[in-house]
Amino acid sequence: MNPLSAALPEAEWSPQGPVLELPDDQSWERLRERSLGHLGVSVDGQPEIYPVNYVCDRQTVLFRTAAGEKLRDLMINRRVAFEVDAEVENGTWSVVVSGRASVLPEEPPLSVELRDSMPPWIPTQEAIWVCIVAEHIRGRQFEHHLPIGRI
Amino acid sequence: MNPLSAALPEAEWSPQGPVLELPDDQSWERLRERSLGHLGVSVDGQPEIYPVNYVCDRQTVLFRTAAGEKLRDLMINRRVAFEVDAEVENGTWSVVVSGRASVLPEEPPLSVELRDSMPPWIPTQEAIWVCIVAEHIRGRQFEHHLPIGRI
Repeated sequence: MNPLSAALPEAEWSPQGPVLELPDDQSWERLRERSLGHLGVSVDGQPEIYPVNYVCDRQTVLFRTAAGEKLRDLMINRRVAFEVDAEVENGTWSVVVSGRASVLPEEPPLSVELRDSMPPWIPTQEAIWVCIVAEHIRGRQFEHHLPIGRI
Repeated sequence: MNPLSAALPEAEWSPQGPVLELPDDQSWERLRERSLGHLGVSVDGQPEIYPVNYVCDRQTVLFRTAAGEKLRDLMINRRVAFEVDAEVENGTWSVVVSGRASVLPEEPPLSVELRDSMPPWIPTQEAIWVCIVAEHIRGRQFEHHLPIGRI
């Protein structure tokens, strides 16, 4: 029996092991620990996923892009899902922000720490800043159980 | 100057560094190296991303799920994007398969090697196998350039 599983009601098990729903503040905290996320967009019912380097400033997700596919898709449909995950000891966590993306009119006023955490940008193309305002956040930790069986 | 960049025309640069488009066979090869991917779905124009453990059998992506949100979303809209990425020395690669998801009527005949590569499944809920048939695959390697400047 996995230690986490003892604390969870049966409904919070998946067939692959215990699933812990993370409180919103912990979900934001985990977003702030990472820098590579997955932007999910949808145009005419066709989903697309783009990997992006991001920063998380309070409860918004910010990333830069150049004119291109991502921006075109976001202009057609601003609704996005933004997912970040990491493998950790005993399992994997995943946080998904659902919300709307907006192009910012200018570079946002970021702290030096956030600014320095972004990868360098060669100014051959203008950096367009995109902000995701969260309408919902959901964090889950998927804990591996011991390999007691397979089907 | 990054060694990769010398071999690439200017159009294959992003402002964060050189981008190498991977041939389809290399993209499939990379999918086969990993086990955690990102399933992008869309219901009524709202994207959603689910992390899933998968296997890649020839040119299809297979994963198991239980009755739940993923399956409900896929019943409404079978069009999916499936993304896998990894950080490697000097950069990140990302492969995205676009296609349609189908529920399989029974467990697919997997090789022992593929079967053993999947995490264990506690049979408290029936495993429903989902297959993504690729209509398109796109692999890219984003190489970090040297930090010569920031904007």
